[in-house]
Amino acid sequence: MILMRFMKLLFVLLFLVFQAAAARAEDGYRLWLRYDLISNAAQRASYAGKLNFIANEYEYPGTAAAEEEVVRALKGLLGKEVKRVKKAEQGKKGIVFRLNAQEEGISEEGFKLNDQGGNILITGKTAAGVLYGSFELLRKIQTGQKIEGITMASSPKIALRLLNHWDNHNGTIERGYAGQSLWKWYELPERIDTRYIDYARANASIGINGTVVNNVNASARFLTGEYIGKVKALADVFRPYGIKVYMSVNFASPRLIGGLKTADPLDEQVRTFWKNKVKEIYTEIPDFGGFLVKANSEGEPGPMDYNRTHADGANMLAEALKPYKGIVMWRSFVYAADPKGDRFKAAYNEFKPFDGQFAENVIIQVKNGPIDFMPREPISPLFGALEKTPVSMEFQLTQEYLGWATHWVFEAPLFKECLDTDTHVKGKGSTVSKVLDGSVYPYRLTSMVGVANTGSDRNWTGHPMAQANWYALGRLAWDHGITSSEIADEWVRMSLTSNTPAVESVKKLMLQSREVYVKYTSPMGLHHLMGEGHHFGPEPWLVKAPRPDWTALYYHRADSSGIGFDRTKGGSDALGQYAEGLRKVYEDPEKCPLPFLMWFHHLSWDHRLSSGRTVWEEIVNSYYTGAEEVLKMEEAWQKVKTDIDPEVHANVAARFRTQYKEAVWWRDACVLYFAQQSRKEIPSGYPLPTRTLEEVKKLVEVYHVR
Amino acid sequence: MILMRFMKLLFVLLFLVFQAAAARAEDGYRLWLRYDLISNAAQRASYAGKLNFIANEYEYPGTAAAEEEVVRALKGLLGKEVKRVKKAEQGKKGIVFRLNAQEEGISEEGFKLNDQGGNILITGKTAAGVLYGSFELLRKIQTGQKIEGITMASSPKIALRLLNHWDNHNGTIERGYAGQSLWKWYELPERIDTRYIDYARANASIGINGTVVNNVNASARFLTGEYIGKVKALADVFRPYGIKVYMSVNFASPRLIGGLKTADPLDEQVRTFWKNKVKEIYTEIPDFGGFLVKANSEGEPGPMDYNRTHADGANMLAEALKPYKGIVMWRSFVYAADPKGDRFKAAYNEFKPFDGQFAENVIIQVKNGPIDFMPREPISPLFGALEKTPVSMEFQLTQEYLGWATHWVFEAPLFKECLDTDTHVKGKGSTVSKVLDGSVYPYRLTSMVGVANTGSDRNWTGHPMAQANWYALGRLAWDHGITSSEIADEWVRMSLTSNTPAVESVKKLMLQSREVYVKYTSPMGLHHLMGEGHHFGPEPWLVKAPRPDWTALYYHRADSSGIGFDRTKGGSDALGQYAEGLRKVYEDPEKCPLPFLMWFHHLSWDHRLSSGRTVWEEIVNSYYTGAEEVLKMEEAWQKVKTDIDPEVHANVAARFRTQYKEAVWWRDACVLYFAQQSRKEIPSGYPLPTRTLEEVKKLVEVYHVR
Repeated sequence: MILMRFMKLLFVLLFLVFQAAAARAEDGYRLWLRYDLISNAAQRASYAGKLNFIANEYEYPGTAAAEEEVVRALKGLLGKEVKRVKKAEQGKKGIVFRLNAQEEGISEEGFKLNDQGGNILITGKTAAGVLYGSFELLRKIQTGQKIEGITMASSPKIALRLLNHWDNHNGTIERGYAGQSLWKWYELPERIDTRYIDYARANASIGINGTVVNNVNASARFLTGEYIGKVKALADVFRPYGIKVYMSVNFASPRLIGGLKTADPLDEQVRTFWKNKVKEIYTEIPDFGGFLVKANSEGEPGPMDYNRTHADGANMLAEALKPYKGIVMWRSFVYAADPKGDRFKAAYNEFKPFDGQFAENVIIQVKNGPIDFMPREPISPLFGALEKTPVSMEFQLTQEYLGWATHWVFEAPLFKECLDTDTHVKGKGSTVSKVLDGSVYPYRLTSMVGVANTGSDRNWTGHPMAQANWYALGRLAWDHGITSSEIADEWVRMSLTSNTPAVESVKKLMLQSREVYVKYTSPMGLHHLMGEGHHFGPEPWLVKAPRPDWTALYYHRADSSGIGFDRTKGGSDALGQYAEGLRKVYEDPEKCPLPFLMWFHHLSWDHRLSSGRTVWEEIVNSYYTGAEEVLKMEEAWQKVKTDIDPEVHANVAARFRTQYKEAVWWRDACVLYFAQQSRKEIPSGYPLPTRTLEEVKKLVEVYHVR
Repeated sequence: MILMRFMKLLFVLLFLVFQAAAARAEDGYRLWLRYDLISNAAQRASYAGKLNFIANEYEYPGTAAAEEEVVRALKGLLGKEVKRVKKAEQGKKGIVFRLNAQEEGISEEGFKLNDQGGNILITGKTAAGVLYGSFELLRKIQTGQKIEGITMASSPKIALRLLNHWDNHNGTIERGYAGQSLWKWYELPERIDTRYIDYARANASIGINGTVVNNVNASARFLTGEYIGKVKALADVFRPYGIKVYMSVNFASPRLIGGLKTADPLDEQVRTFWKNKVKEIYTEIPDFGGFLVKANSEGEPGPMDYNRTHADGANMLAEALKPYKGIVMWRSFVYAADPKGDRFKAAYNEFKPFDGQFAENVIIQVKNGPIDFMPREPISPLFGALEKTPVSMEFQLTQEYLGWATHWVFEAPLFKECLDTDTHVKGKGSTVSKVLDGSVYPYRLTSMVGVANTGSDRNWTGHPMAQANWYALGRLAWDHGITSSEIADEWVRMSLTSNTPAVESVKKLMLQSREVYVKYTSPMGLHHLMGEGHHFGPEPWLVKAPRPDWTALYYHRADSSGIGFDRTKGGSDALGQYAEGLRKVYEDPEKCPLPFLMWFHHLSWDHRLSSGRTVWEEIVNSYYTGAEEVLKMEEAWQKVKTDIDPEVHANVAARFRTQYKEAVWWRDACVLYFAQQSRKEIPSGYPLPTRTLEEVKKLVEVYHVR
């Protein structure tokens, strides 16, 4: 009879499990925090034996968040409810939180993990440290690492680790390819979407401690009382997770919403407007982070509208923020429209003269390259150029120039290529990383930001694999010494599969993906070949645009004599902005690494390269092999099918079809166009495009139709 | 030993169930197709005994979709896998599909449900009929109705039952408040979001058989080969569910993408462009539905740009579509900017003269009211005015003027109010419903459409309760005789709770919600008082706008002498466009129903009404009681807390907070402004607003800041 009842109960349970499984394939919402049951029973049991309780004697929101996360994670990973206690239980093993403001060897946000008599001690100077330590411990379990005898200490190398959201108040995201803004402004402050909490969890898990919630092309609306109240509601959600909110501000706000006739930074009424506004913000959000400013750039207002300098503008805001320890992140992305100039040089020329003139709570936020997030750029010459003014790194996670949401591009190698570049400003070893973390010059502020690729799509990032870029930014901002391979390894194990051969296959795809993208879009340092305005697809023939430096011709300068932008002394001398050691890497066309060649040299089509090919042959070869490599990636992806959730696998597989179609589009467009410019034939051995240049040109036109 | 293994298995299963439950609270994604296990075991067993198999001997995609749905639904509702067979099993009871093209008593899409010797026979003339019959059967089970001995036949009263998506190619939705477009154009045609299938299922379940995928303010981009290929991919997904795709077209497409210098509908090249384009579409989508056109309206191009008529324009497209049985849905929403005119009269004046001149595959699509989806409008005088030209009803599901996604407004009562209005054009009983379904005049085409309120938000519609408006549109298009209460009853039982007292409470809230909204925004027939452009919040003081008929003053005409728009003979004589029987309902200010009074009469503030109050007192009373009723609704919602999923309940509760805040905003804005216009005091007994008119005016200004 009992057995019968058991059988019946079993049936009902089985059905419920079946239903639950059927109802939810993996939709990617959980990101790298999946916490699925560890399938290896022995491994699961081993962890379970060591993790019987979580001892948290503190009442801080940050430690509560950490405790919640640990309980949630272990319920998933180990299939057991870990007991919540105040003090470590005698005779059992578990996790113990420890706060010690005087702890040595770690910074404010740092943590230690120590096996102490069988218990795992998570020590931090602050609740944030304990939270980060908890996520580190969970990551070790998620990736199947040993925790017995653990002893480690970790502190972030960069103090400000931020996402920048280019989100508008109407819900659109500038250069967003994953749905609408996460922030539902019309529902705030009353309704808190549960997604805000999961956003905070994800960021905290990778050490991100700040978020700029609105677009750098900023609406003044965010500075109204209504919207400050809405931002406050977000700040309240994020605070336990160690995340501060920041806002992008419109420099003309005193005019737009303040009732003033000017926004002149030296005008007393303007200064008062900002002081009052800052006070209003801090009344609502006592730990508000500060302002991000895009000024006098691409039509945005700024101090130069009043014949003032960037320093005047930034310092005025800095003065208003200083009493509250707020900061100003002032973007260096400014460039005048000059058909004879070189946009490459603009930021350096604008900012270098003001080094030392910025207030102490100002940091200059610099894009990784001198132009604009191209698939490959040399570093911005501003890195290492400002000795007395802290400089921040701005990477772009959203794939504006990297194939939007249909191309698989793992960006860690791009980030690392930049971070590892040696500026030589204080001799060999003055890498960009070391400039950023304040070890080349003693910067008061250190910062690394990623322009977010998140949106309201169920899986956050559109392309399932783009989650890894968000992950990589956080991990590198914490520790720029981690390798791309290490990041990929962690992410794959946490997000896709723990089966090592499959992990290795996917990692290989990730690590090659950016180079493949470069090959079929912008080989050998070619850049800015994309469609006008929308930046979708190829348009290398673009010669007319609202500004000369928004065309393709401005950059590739291809004609019958050759191709490339001469930035040597004989040309624009942009190379002169680098320290000698770095300049030498690029200035000799015979020695300049091929991936950067067209960034610095104009060479004849027949110029013979170290590869043995001529410039023309190398370009053609790159476009063809790049497109073919997409097919090979797709084949490799098919081989891991059984190791990946079916919905995720099918999603990526479908995007490969689009990626290949567009890779061939790029190939045909660029090869046919450059063939026309060079008056060369496509070398034998490469199948001729099955369409004419005129036909390919029509493709991008579709995307210009409003 | 066996028991031990059972115990262990039981534990693992229990854990998995727990995990699955924890991981997914009700997020609203499943709409009214939740299919959760019927909690009443006796009832569940009763259904289960009758539903042992599903016999489907056909190979049509439509019957396959029906079979899938039945299996999926019964797995959820009954907790059992229903056996799939070709023929009814002897000695067991089950469901049998039956296709019979000659079946009498039903139309092409109709169905019969019959208990035949214990089996439930679902008969249709087409696969679509079987699909609709399957959903009807499931609805009966979902709502706990008896199926034993069932015998019913049902056919749609309206042939074309459509959603209109105002979705743009960049993913934004005009007047959308629930996220981004469902259509991911850059992923199509390669990637098929699983959501497309669930969209089709939801529509089929309520009888919707067509969808216009893009905005009436149409981009010509949708007519390029690229985008036709993308639309084809959607059509392929929707086809098994009986749903045809339609497109909105930009009338200037021959110029914009055809390389022509004109879009003159009488130009031969233009006509050839459209013929070729239509042919191209039908090559890809053989069952393409046709075109929806917004022409010469609010700046959109149209035939009048070439001194041609609406008939010229529509007929030209109709000619191109005719060989393929495609149709033209030509919108009547046109109005010239005339400060001295009455926009009310525009559509009738534009279209009435052309009655009889439209091709046979043209239908005129008319918004329910003469202005633009106001909270309450009298019917458009075009209903019943066109005898020889079919007329379609355009309702708006998205809450452009109904509080966006934070106000709870169940729209069925609004729809029914319009459908039940008697036009009197062929004597008493000539209701709008009967005009639409072709029983007043023998229309060749019958149609009812809803401007969709769907978006990429997880729960599809932003406000969880707004799902009911989508549901209502489908149900009413199928059978305009269903009552609002019946629709609400079905929807609540399928979507929220089966506990009858809670069902009654929620129904009561739904049925009063629209009237409450009217009370605190636009009482007694006041209309067009909302914020300029964005249509958010109150702006009754608006006197300047790009067009006079986009202001508020144009409509309310409030000054010290009185308020309201005189549309009687002595005024604009808009009433003259109605048949006498309907005109009489409104023309005498003493007899005109109060809800419509200000639509037709300008009255002094002291005019005494049938309510016993003066006009001024009635208006004030309405604003105050309306706002208070939101609080009462909120209280009633709290009382059903235990019957509703916690996430859904909390979501709605939070939106009530916003709704009340905004109701008070509307109240204060309108009462203070009309007090100023009327030079009257707020009567005693009503608490004075705690802010000044100037302060309230600033609120809407926030939402005008770009």
